[in-house]
Amino acid sequence: MIEDKNPQRTSIAQLGEFGLIDHLTRNFDVTQESTLKSIGDDAAVLDFKDKKVVVSTDLLIEGVHFDLAYMPLKHLGYKAVVVNVSDICAMNAKPTQITVSVAVSNRFPLEALEELFEGITHAAKEYKIDVIGGDTTSSQKGLIISITAIGEAAEDEIAYRNGAKQTDLLVVTGDIGAAYMGLQVLEREKQVFQVNPNSQPDLDPYTYLVERQLKPEARTDVRTLLHALEIKPTSMIDISDGLSSEIIHICKQSKVGCNLYEDKLPLDPQFISTCEEFNIDSTTVAINGGEDYELLFTIDINDFDKIKGNPNFSIIGHMAEENEGIHLVTRANTKIALKARGWDALSE
Amino acid sequence: MIEDKNPQRTSIAQLGEFGLIDHLTRNFDVTQESTLKSIGDDAAVLDFKDKKVVVSTDLLIEGVHFDLAYMPLKHLGYKAVVVNVSDICAMNAKPTQITVSVAVSNRFPLEALEELFEGITHAAKEYKIDVIGGDTTSSQKGLIISITAIGEAAEDEIAYRNGAKQTDLLVVTGDIGAAYMGLQVLEREKQVFQVNPNSQPDLDPYTYLVERQLKPEARTDVRTLLHALEIKPTSMIDISDGLSSEIIHICKQSKVGCNLYEDKLPLDPQFISTCEEFNIDSTTVAINGGEDYELLFTIDINDFDKIKGNPNFSIIGHMAEENEGIHLVTRANTKIALKARGWDALSE
Repeated sequence: MIEDKNPQRTSIAQLGEFGLIDHLTRNFDVTQESTLKSIGDDAAVLDFKDKKVVVSTDLLIEGVHFDLAYMPLKHLGYKAVVVNVSDICAMNAKPTQITVSVAVSNRFPLEALEELFEGITHAAKEYKIDVIGGDTTSSQKGLIISITAIGEAAEDEIAYRNGAKQTDLLVVTGDIGAAYMGLQVLEREKQVFQVNPNSQPDLDPYTYLVERQLKPEARTDVRTLLHALEIKPTSMIDISDGLSSEIIHICKQSKVGCNLYEDKLPLDPQFISTCEEFNIDSTTVAINGGEDYELLFTIDINDFDKIKGNPNFSIIGHMAEENEGIHLVTRANTKIALKARGWDALSE
Repeated sequence: MIEDKNPQRTSIAQLGEFGLIDHLTRNFDVTQESTLKSIGDDAAVLDFKDKKVVVSTDLLIEGVHFDLAYMPLKHLGYKAVVVNVSDICAMNAKPTQITVSVAVSNRFPLEALEELFEGITHAAKEYKIDVIGGDTTSSQKGLIISITAIGEAAEDEIAYRNGAKQTDLLVVTGDIGAAYMGLQVLEREKQVFQVNPNSQPDLDPYTYLVERQLKPEARTDVRTLLHALEIKPTSMIDISDGLSSEIIHICKQSKVGCNLYEDKLPLDPQFISTCEEFNIDSTTVAINGGEDYELLFTIDINDFDKIKGNPNFSIIGHMAEENEGIHLVTRANTKIALKARGWDALSE
């Protein structure tokens, strides 16, 4: 379908492990001042001087986190970086370096790995981060990607999940739910393709949704935006598992309650029309669908004037006393308890 | 065989991802001063003040890097940490934190993961490092472990691979080859077991070899030993892929040659007798067998007096001009060109 049919195939075994690493990492430049020594030794060496170091890691498994039937390898490489960079952004920190480890089965030719690394290189350039190390090995089945991201921040800038106060406002960047609907569109096209391999998918009406699924971006801009507005988020998290799930994380760790307002949820028109077409309730998807990689954060209520009307941010609710619980306030003004229904990789 | 037959099996899906992470990470204490925030947020936060940060990562795949038929999960967890800690030691740095990501297929019950994490916890305590983050997910096949290790060092302490000079001495810690022969012993027992499941393996004559394979230790002590001797290694690497391969790395990156002396290789008596039993040339195994996790380094020739006779170190050769090449000088005083024949995970 969208998968690249490259007729040229070079066996990875021909190059050997060290040859392969040299080949794949030749485009990784060093641009960060904090990178003293990158790839090529037992470890990379970093220098953060008086800044604090922030570290996050993710493991992506073929068939669990991605499907190569509709995920081009270049996009996958890009997305794997984004997922980790997003975690650093969610600390209100600046991403600076990543390590990338990849395991592949013999069915992958060199050209496939090159495509994957092209996406990784592209993301590293886009986000101005250095690839400082990694590991390349074979797998028994499928493609496995493990990325660790490193970032920096001043101690008083860092936003944890446990800092929300019961009078804070709840804010989200961008819009939500689109990545999940993009996946539904791609899954449908995959099924059509399996029945009739000659069918041409028409993804035009869903470009935004598909892009949100295949090429999400990490919100590295939010740190700068908030800094310019002189707002320090009291807590922050990225939306990878779904809005409900992330709100519950903040509430539990901050020991507060929350009221989330259905009519405040920022939804893209294409998202709404596609939910209608699929006959799915848009609010359900918006609060449970994951992989949007937007940032969810709380701010002091006194910062309301600084943020209201700003097109980058939507105020979607407010925190409350812990014993008030965590609720969605519907358009009909009824309160429904929020549940974490984010996709759980282990129960699938 | 050595595999644990635990009759109690709890499905991982019952706990869910977050429940599983909470359960598995409950024994991880914070002991490092540089760990400001550990597990439980989007990222961990570290503070190294004026020290440099050292980062290394490894990906371990079942069936490629380990075989659960003879590798108990507790030992595997321990070894996975050691492999990464060893890379930090090979920079002459002090390991301080690790992140641990694990993917498992449904065939693994909770008890198996608990055993794995018991080994990880044990290693973290042993090496006084903090487990600061990770990821837990499902795999399509087998067990996958990705570990990233972080360490610290003053800038002038760090030993790279490219600092060897042509007059330097070549030094190795401990003894070599035993881990490889341990693997041969275990492979043989596995085959015996497959033919006759009632046979009882007698591993007594091979305890040291088997321990070197199943429970290797990282040489965190070498940094302190060298510091006490007032020796700064000019280059350093750990022996994971075999001595030849590592010597060639140092020579290529330092642009020097090397003469390695067969009669200087430090070999354990059990290693020698087992090589005889298996009818394998001990020198071939000593220079090509991997996974010893000893440190190989070069020192200035003027430091000779400081190190000679020290039971922790063996002087096994000296560097030379680049165009002299890289050779093994045999007991018969003939010179054989060294080749990197360390096991290459990708060509297997």
